[in-house]
Amino acid sequence: MRFSARNKLPGVVQSIDSDGLMAKVSLRVGDNHVVALVTAEAVSELDLKIGDEVTALIKSTSVMLAKP
Amino acid sequence: MRFSARNKLPGVVQSIDSDGLMAKVSLRVGDNHVVALVTAEAVSELDLKIGDEVTALIKSTSVMLAKP
Amino acid sequence: MRFSARNKLPGVVQSIDSDGLMAKVSLRVGDNHVVALVTAEAVSELDLKIGDEVTALIKSTSVMLAKP
Amino acid sequence: MRFSARNKLPGVVQSIDSDGLMAKVSLRVGDNHVVALVTAEAVSELDLKIGDEVTALIKSTSVMLAKP
Amino acid sequence: MRFSARNKLPGVVQSIDSDGLMAKVSLRVGDNHVVALVTAEAVSELDLKIGDEVTALIKSTSVMLAKP
Amino acid sequence: MRFSARNKLPGVVQSIDSDGLMAKVSLRVGDNHVVALVTAEAVSELDLKIGDEVTALIKSTSVMLAKP
Repeated sequence: MRFSARNKLPGVVQSIDSDGLMAKVSLRVGDNHVVALVTAEAVSELDLKIGDEVTALIKSTSVMLAKP
Repeated sequence: MRFSARNKLPGVVQSIDSDGLMAKVSLRVGDNHVVALVTAEAVSELDLKIGDEVTALIKSTSVMLAKP
Repeated sequence: MRFSARNKLPGVVQSIDSDGLMAKVSLRVGDNHVVALVTAEAVSELDLKIGDEVTALIKSTSVMLAKP
Repeated sequence: MRFSARNKLPGVVQSIDSDGLMAKVSLRVGDNHVVALVTAEAVSELDLKIGDEVTALIKSTSVMLAKP
Repeated sequence: MRFSARNKLPGVVQSIDSDGLMAKVSLRVGDNHVVALVTAEAVSELDLKIGDEVTALIKSTSVMLAKP
Repeated sequence: MRFSARNKLPGVVQSIDSDGLMAKVSLRVGDNHVVALVTAEAVSELDLKIGDEVTALIKSTSVMLAKP
């Protein structure tokens, strides 16, 4: 399957914090951390667990740049 | 300066492709590439050049997860 | 492959309008039209053509509701 | 009233799940389901109820495409 | 018509810059400027002109905070 | 520090409503209110308090226009 999103970052789930409708999923992506805020329903549906290999998909229109 | 965004990825500008109102900026972030679609005006205003050190700011609500 | 996105709308590409960095892709999704604004690069990479069956992925955080 | 958003999907509210600050609203849109994550405050303010006819507004920049 | 979006900023169109598929619309909102990037098609469809009174709708999930 | 975001609205925090993973932060921006939905973790990390001067950063791609 191919995606229009320009950002497809391979990561490993490091923590999952569910509360009510929402869940915060932290990934290790190379030397960085990437955090996704998804529905708790999505965590169940994907059967997400610590150690899972997942891809973070991010549209390039959602990326802001900051320069010192 | 501190940001509410959970994703603050340090990168180096590798290419800038401007066309009309828009510009596509590619960063090297560790072993990954991150692409930001911004306005051409922003590229001018930040005086973005290849080799610049920038930070990609991404809200965690904009991150989608895919699992094989 | 499974996605955290709550909205996974199956559609058929009806038109592709590329200009510079950007492309507007219109899908038929049931009786509705769905429009995606993606990079022209994504259209090439996915080899998108009229008649292709694709899925529109939309995070639920990106959906706004209006009530008369 | 007219909207810049390219996606204006007419739907009927099928379920509302509120928890704390957030609410997940599911719509029937033709043969598909569309889910919106909004604030619980918005659900009150719009007096959203099951069976309500609403419009899901989605900017085309928020739509990602996936092709098998 | 009522909206789930928490941010409904009343403004006056100050400039419209169309190029290809995209258009950048600048509004005066009180003492501030608000810029919207929309499709050129939307500008036509709304018959947007300088001086028009419009509302900028922004989901609260799209707002990032920075603190010095 | 400079930002690619076209919208950089200076505001003062008027209320903070945290619940579980999420927090709703309301700002006074000129004569308007701006609401940001961020993680509760961000509120802690920025040590956000009522009266703080902050900047709301919003990408122009996230702004929708409505015209009567």
